[in-house]
Amino acid sequence: MWLLKSRTCWVTERTKEHKVSCPLKYTCPILGRQFRSRLEEGDLKLRRDSSELRKSMEKMTAFQRFSRVFRDNSSLTKMLIVFTVSGGGLVAYSEAKPDNGMNAITSTEADGKKKRVVVLGTGWAGTSFLKNLKNSSYDVQVISPRNYFAFTPLLPSVTCGTVEPRSIVEPIRNIVRKKKVDVRYWEAECFKIDADNKKVYCRSNFTTNLDGEEEFVVDYDYLVIAVGARANTFNIPGVAENCHFLKEIEDAQRIRRTVIDCFERASLPSLTDEERKKILHFVVVGGGPTGVEFAAELHDYVNEDLVKLYPKAKDSVKITLLEATDHILNMFDKRITAFAEEKFQRDGIDVKTGAMVVKVSDKEISTKEVKNGGNVSSMPYGMAVWSTGIGTRPVIMNFMTQIGQTNRRALASDEWLRVEGCDSVYALGDCATINQRKVVEDICAIFRKADKDNSGTLTVKEFQEVLDDICERYPQVGLYLKNRQMNSLVDLLKDSKGDVVKESVEVDLEEFRLALSQVDSQMKNLPATAQVAAQQGSYLADCFNRMEECEKNPEGPLRFRGEGRHRFRPFRYKHFGQFAPLGGEQTAAQLPGDWVSIGQSSQWLWYSVYASKLVSWRTRALVISDWGRRFIFGRDSSGI
Amino acid sequence: MWLLKSRTCWVTERTKEHKVSCPLKYTCPILGRQFRSRLEEGDLKLRRDSSELRKSMEKMTAFQRFSRVFRDNSSLTKMLIVFTVSGGGLVAYSEAKPDNGMNAITSTEADGKKKRVVVLGTGWAGTSFLKNLKNSSYDVQVISPRNYFAFTPLLPSVTCGTVEPRSIVEPIRNIVRKKKVDVRYWEAECFKIDADNKKVYCRSNFTTNLDGEEEFVVDYDYLVIAVGARANTFNIPGVAENCHFLKEIEDAQRIRRTVIDCFERASLPSLTDEERKKILHFVVVGGGPTGVEFAAELHDYVNEDLVKLYPKAKDSVKITLLEATDHILNMFDKRITAFAEEKFQRDGIDVKTGAMVVKVSDKEISTKEVKNGGNVSSMPYGMAVWSTGIGTRPVIMNFMTQIGQTNRRALASDEWLRVEGCDSVYALGDCATINQRKVVEDICAIFRKADKDNSGTLTVKEFQEVLDDICERYPQVGLYLKNRQMNSLVDLLKDSKGDVVKESVEVDLEEFRLALSQVDSQMKNLPATAQVAAQQGSYLADCFNRMEECEKNPEGPLRFRGEGRHRFRPFRYKHFGQFAPLGGEQTAAQLPGDWVSIGQSSQWLWYSVYASKLVSWRTRALVISDWGRRFIFGRDSSGI
Repeated sequence: MWLLKSRTCWVTERTKEHKVSCPLKYTCPILGRQFRSRLEEGDLKLRRDSSELRKSMEKMTAFQRFSRVFRDNSSLTKMLIVFTVSGGGLVAYSEAKPDNGMNAITSTEADGKKKRVVVLGTGWAGTSFLKNLKNSSYDVQVISPRNYFAFTPLLPSVTCGTVEPRSIVEPIRNIVRKKKVDVRYWEAECFKIDADNKKVYCRSNFTTNLDGEEEFVVDYDYLVIAVGARANTFNIPGVAENCHFLKEIEDAQRIRRTVIDCFERASLPSLTDEERKKILHFVVVGGGPTGVEFAAELHDYVNEDLVKLYPKAKDSVKITLLEATDHILNMFDKRITAFAEEKFQRDGIDVKTGAMVVKVSDKEISTKEVKNGGNVSSMPYGMAVWSTGIGTRPVIMNFMTQIGQTNRRALASDEWLRVEGCDSVYALGDCATINQRKVVEDICAIFRKADKDNSGTLTVKEFQEVLDDICERYPQVGLYLKNRQMNSLVDLLKDSKGDVVKESVEVDLEEFRLALSQVDSQMKNLPATAQVAAQQGSYLADCFNRMEECEKNPEGPLRFRGEGRHRFRPFRYKHFGQFAPLGGEQTAAQLPGDWVSIGQSSQWLWYSVYASKLVSWRTRALVISDWGRRFIFGRDSSGI
Repeated sequence: MWLLKSRTCWVTERTKEHKVSCPLKYTCPILGRQFRSRLEEGDLKLRRDSSELRKSMEKMTAFQRFSRVFRDNSSLTKMLIVFTVSGGGLVAYSEAKPDNGMNAITSTEADGKKKRVVVLGTGWAGTSFLKNLKNSSYDVQVISPRNYFAFTPLLPSVTCGTVEPRSIVEPIRNIVRKKKVDVRYWEAECFKIDADNKKVYCRSNFTTNLDGEEEFVVDYDYLVIAVGARANTFNIPGVAENCHFLKEIEDAQRIRRTVIDCFERASLPSLTDEERKKILHFVVVGGGPTGVEFAAELHDYVNEDLVKLYPKAKDSVKITLLEATDHILNMFDKRITAFAEEKFQRDGIDVKTGAMVVKVSDKEISTKEVKNGGNVSSMPYGMAVWSTGIGTRPVIMNFMTQIGQTNRRALASDEWLRVEGCDSVYALGDCATINQRKVVEDICAIFRKADKDNSGTLTVKEFQEVLDDICERYPQVGLYLKNRQMNSLVDLLKDSKGDVVKESVEVDLEEFRLALSQVDSQMKNLPATAQVAAQQGSYLADCFNRMEECEKNPEGPLRFRGEGRHRFRPFRYKHFGQFAPLGGEQTAAQLPGDWVSIGQSSQWLWYSVYASKLVSWRTRALVISDWGRRFIFGRDSSGI
């Protein structure tokens, strides 16, 4: 599992050969140590010659080769089964049970001395915050309609039963149980935030037959909003009624049942061939990572498992992937995009780019060509999955109106994740976006602060003293310099002054403004991914952990507009790369530093990274055993 | 796992000590061999002294002792995990995958030469029939709203997450895939049977957005009805609306979600203590094996898992078991009943016997005392599970009216499982009951047939010639003799004649009628269990397999009312015993021959028997891994 060297897939562009070489650190999910793997030159080179590629794919896997040994020796096999079942159980038992002395949460009434932190949401951001919060001087209350954290990157696997839904969830009470911090959880949905009075209004959504208050109010001192986003229908008619989304566990379960329903329905004796083809037409709208992964999973499910049980269906199944832009996976490197499009073509997945959905009825999807005159055409379908983007939840929409943030997609926060326009409220994850301050806005303040002698000009020495603070406060400066291949801001100033000796550079305000005028073009919003949310959660928890400490000894950059320093360093996102599983044990990985890897080795890397990132040993064991079960028995097709 | 010797629990009645000694054959689910275990004298004697019992229960299990070794040695642990995951996967892969050459079912249009067999239902009876049908001269069509077989004895385990729902189901297409018989499956519900024209009318129940026929008609030559039963509300008001049933996988999933919902709801900050107690009051109606097992499972779930996450709830939880008769588990030996009642009392499960439910509102259950003047009282509840008995499905009700079987609980069939009053229709499982022919009805015919010389009297010689046929045709005769401790029917005749020499017994019709008059009292209906249904399915498949062969050479008993012999031997049920899991790793087992075993060894026996009885290697592996997972990580409490 850890031999990542072999079978790395090289990607060659027409003329130039990119070295797919990536020093990568990751944690092995089982041995718990850090391995340093180097994806080196592999045995498979991806060229235009796709027949060679196909041949390589058909080769036996190492797994299959090993298994033959066991198949030939049945008593060895049986011994091993016994050992496996009993040994595995024993080990895991001994690993997991030492905590029998249950750490009961003393859920006292909110202690007057403790600051009350209310966390809305148990997704990536909220859970990451809770996991990293270690300061016991807070009284934490978590409010979410889901009493568990779900490992959403594996949702597409759940839609086809590669992984069971329960294997990727962990009860939030379990996550916070062993902490020293007081954490209480309420299963309810926040429907109103009152930032003026520091209250949140909640409603429980139980369907049991009981009386008692349905609504309650929680007071807070700090509010952490991490409610995530909802699927975005862009107000296209019929989408909400007829399409499946892929945001929650329940969505994935529903998709799984619908796929089986379609196959069962298409098997009924009363249907014509045409009707059968309609029913077995699966349409995926949105060529992003989720849509692509779902289409690939579905293709594997149909071709590896379902055709065995529904042999007649094979010729009638069709999977269509609709994308409004010119290419699928357009946030990835173009080598990955090209590989994915080519692979899907080989697999028979119909990729329609430049096709914008304009209407969905219960029987047909209407699309409009983005180019070529915008022809509108319709296609009948059996099941449609909508994964095109994210929208704002109603509670956030209301809150934004309340605090004057209108016409926005998400809650705007500053670089310390504090919501703009209110006090002690933080926003993380998909429901928020960081409103990075522009250098241009602060240019006078920066100049004044740097010009210590008030001479009206900045010398290099003066400038160098505030350099680090500028780079820390305005990360776009660093990015700009990196892109222009400059070493420091001084080079930038020098650049704007022409050919002078570096040390003698001296600029006035206008020259300074001119030199930094292009810097803000580097600003971009962070993507709405689990990685961003998790980093924001752990960043904020770290701030909360050191709140008092940093109050006394601020560690942030200079305040250019005010006095003193900022309490904390601003949030800085670190990108660790991104995967795009393409089905058939092929995965594309884009890693920091323009490194790209496609093929089976990336699939194993994907397995390792995802297994190690899972939230608990329980989910880790379950997901790994699910993968094993899929290898051995295939995916289940019971209609439950 | 296979050391059944230790810890067998002895049951002693007040004066007499029953030896709980049971030679029992069972198949080991993993090694696949037959073990002969002898439940011998164990180390634990169940006496009135319950403190001794409790102490023994608290002892460390062997599992825990082993696990300590591993806990002390972490590198051994890690090595073992790696080995376990990889080795186990390899072995199972090599065991399971040899069948890649998929056996496609050629679903040709119903071949004119082949007899069309239509099977309604994929429960125990239907699946057992399909599994055992080997004669390829049939064209089989299966119609059921569930495309899978569910191993229902594990349903109570599913309600609390001890076993996952998907682990106990196997797609019916998978079960019939490797057969040489042509089997086609339609996911639909039969809503009308037309026995005159040999047609069944079906309706698919898909909720997908598709056109196409919702209803279709299937012709048959033989019809096998195995649709099972539905839960019986006895028309008590409010039961259908407010109670959970426990018949289907979906029921178990719903119960699991509701239990968690109750705990989450009871944790909300806005509730009073009284409301909290209401919400955490779980009522189980029906003290049969299912109700008792569910109550025990729920108790374990609450006390082993949920109290860790909901520490405040511990004192508010209450489980009540309502039973209308004087004792729970009244179909079991009274030693088991006594043990179960005592154990539940110790566990704090409130067993209310003699309490008949008369009304269920959304907040309260009203019960009436069967004795003591029939006082009616009400109790508030959070969740109620109804498991009191079975009722007739609408399609069977209609069919019974059609064929003149009114005012019955189930379809009446003869001893060959043929539905009375129509042709080529068979009924198995819970929807049917065998209408055993009474000896008294046929007494003249028997006498005439036996009296070969038409002398008006039967000699012992004449009688002995038809003896085996009588015993085979009328199984109540054998039971009666066994109960009266007689060796043969001749003893019975002799008994009625008084003190004569055996060989000289000679009886006329009246004396013969008198001698056999008590015999029919032994007749009783078979219980509605999985065991009966499965045996009926395999019996009928066996008949179908040898239909032509036995047409030529009948193997059944003499036809007393007609000419010749019956084609087949009549169906005879063989009871292999019954389990009643009581929670806390304690199970009661009642085995044939008045053998009773209670305790942890019976629990292991239960594990072994159930694992071996599971329908496929896949489900077996999954259920065993679920049990292992429960040992290690406990049960999950996510609200999905």
